[in-house]
Amino acid sequence: MTHPEAVRWTDDGAAVDLLDQTRLPEAEIRLRLETAAEVADAIRTMRVRGAPAIGIAAAMGVAVELARHATLPFAEFRAKLDATAELLRATRPTGFNLSWALERMRRRAEAEVGRPPNEIAWALFEEANAILVEDRGMCRRIGEHGLDILPDGDVAVLTHCNAGALATGGMGTALAPVYAAHATGRTIMVYAGETRPLLQGSRLTAWELGRAGVDVTLIPDSVAAVLMAQGRIDLVVVGADRIAANGDVANKIGTYGLAVAARHHSIRVMVVAPVSTFDLGIADGSHIPIEDRGPYEILQCGGHLIAPGGVNTWNPVFDVTPAGLIDVIVSEKGAIQAPDRQKIKALLV
Amino acid sequence: MTHPEAVRWTDDGAAVDLLDQTRLPEAEIRLRLETAAEVADAIRTMRVRGAPAIGIAAAMGVAVELARHATLPFAEFRAKLDATAELLRATRPTGFNLSWALERMRRRAEAEVGRPPNEIAWALFEEANAILVEDRGMCRRIGEHGLDILPDGDVAVLTHCNAGALATGGMGTALAPVYAAHATGRTIMVYAGETRPLLQGSRLTAWELGRAGVDVTLIPDSVAAVLMAQGRIDLVVVGADRIAANGDVANKIGTYGLAVAARHHSIRVMVVAPVSTFDLGIADGSHIPIEDRGPYEILQCGGHLIAPGGVNTWNPVFDVTPAGLIDVIVSEKGAIQAPDRQKIKALLV
Repeated sequence: MTHPEAVRWTDDGAAVDLLDQTRLPEAEIRLRLETAAEVADAIRTMRVRGAPAIGIAAAMGVAVELARHATLPFAEFRAKLDATAELLRATRPTGFNLSWALERMRRRAEAEVGRPPNEIAWALFEEANAILVEDRGMCRRIGEHGLDILPDGDVAVLTHCNAGALATGGMGTALAPVYAAHATGRTIMVYAGETRPLLQGSRLTAWELGRAGVDVTLIPDSVAAVLMAQGRIDLVVVGADRIAANGDVANKIGTYGLAVAARHHSIRVMVVAPVSTFDLGIADGSHIPIEDRGPYEILQCGGHLIAPGGVNTWNPVFDVTPAGLIDVIVSEKGAIQAPDRQKIKALLV
Repeated sequence: MTHPEAVRWTDDGAAVDLLDQTRLPEAEIRLRLETAAEVADAIRTMRVRGAPAIGIAAAMGVAVELARHATLPFAEFRAKLDATAELLRATRPTGFNLSWALERMRRRAEAEVGRPPNEIAWALFEEANAILVEDRGMCRRIGEHGLDILPDGDVAVLTHCNAGALATGGMGTALAPVYAAHATGRTIMVYAGETRPLLQGSRLTAWELGRAGVDVTLIPDSVAAVLMAQGRIDLVVVGADRIAANGDVANKIGTYGLAVAARHHSIRVMVVAPVSTFDLGIADGSHIPIEDRGPYEILQCGGHLIAPGGVNTWNPVFDVTPAGLIDVIVSEKGAIQAPDRQKIKALLV
């Protein structure tokens, strides 16, 4: 069995086929989205999540929407394109991949100016498909580079949150080397931290790996250090939200604690992320603000109050792991061992 | 405001007054238990939890039950006593404090043989009350010894699970130094890890500290290392389920990871536990088996499925922290800095 696909074309090629992640792990429901409004709603309600997957879905949403207006006069077609891009952009105003994908669609339309709207509409389909296909290729290359880093023989990795197929158009980022190893018939076992408070490890990572036939074991986050002490983890594999110029990595809360525990047990930490994750404008992790998502996610679970209502909380959405605790960063352009400012700059140019 | 009382006598002295911990944090409901059957039911359904509190409740349950039979002939009274002890013991066959408290009640009855049942019944009340009062004194002495260990000035501690008033007859074990500091007017702030999977930190520790007016902040367990990195934790304070002869500590899952992170950040770790927690028959932590509590607690939360039903899990109830990661153990007999076999032996004789 292979990895699930978060977002793809429907078989008839006329709509966006989205896996509804809000229904996981209880039900595997695929949605057929035929308009940009439906795609925007799916992004807003987190039926699709993960920066790459969101960008892809938005680009595809532009394509399917404009196909419905391909017989309009050019001026109206263009106005419809602008309104569609704006609708989708507004679902996540700070989404980097989302803005990037929509801007790429806009530029493609600009490049086609002068041709009839139905031909521009077709070009937009091509462009959205290129974004999807490139993302799949990026995941595959990440998987290949990551596979080279895995220790030989049977291997057990620990991961956190979900940087898997469900977050991308392809086989994921952090989980791409896992799928690559599994595809070659190697024995690879994954321990997935449940990832409080939003439980992406439970809901998403455990589900997608299990569905793909990868041996996965779900653990409370606090169990990770014990597994390390027992010698049951060969490598920690995590994604990244943002990587500073010096190699400091912002990722889901809990990553830093895993990196500290891994260092204590002399276990290597591999960060896996596309080159688009590097932000050379950020000198180091101290310049990355840590957002507090407020009490709601900690005070309740499954709609049930689990803590006293008025209690103070601190609920940072991510943490920053210093480059010194990271053994290797893997991207689609290759791996950087013992990452630092010079090596990162060299990789990106 | 002072700490809540998990178990005490009702005002009329005729029944067990129990705080129903299954209703926390949503409601503070006290139960009036007039029979051993009611107490047994409360233990079985975890309305009272924490080894010391369970032992006390059971002893008090024996007293209130036998008072109802104080007019029986001696042989019948004795049979009733045996049956009552058996009923209570069966609620938690492996409960060390429970067995200890019931055995103490039995011995007291033996010591009174020859006196009329109504006088023996009164002696049982005295004995149960002595167990309660001694536990309160133990907590208070632990608090005093722990207070000596706290750094001067404003202090922020990190705790895990619940080793507080809710687990004892008094002001708790790990939280006793916190209450002691608070009572002297010192500024003490507590960060409480929510303690997945059963969330004792959310449900119990955050509630009892908040109710007592102690400044408490609830965090997902994986946030602890970030707080340490930010210099916001002065001391880690945890309880213990069992302490081996060499100072290795078995405690709630997650304790080991906190100790590893604390060492990385040069933060001291204080384990707080009554001397009854030491088990000199266990040479070191490697001889303490780690029980897997199965998938249910990880797969659901608040009655809602949060992970794929068939996934593998590993859900150890506690972990073992080696003595080398523990800076000080505090008991009612005093503190042991840098605990080892010799110092522990010296304390206990």
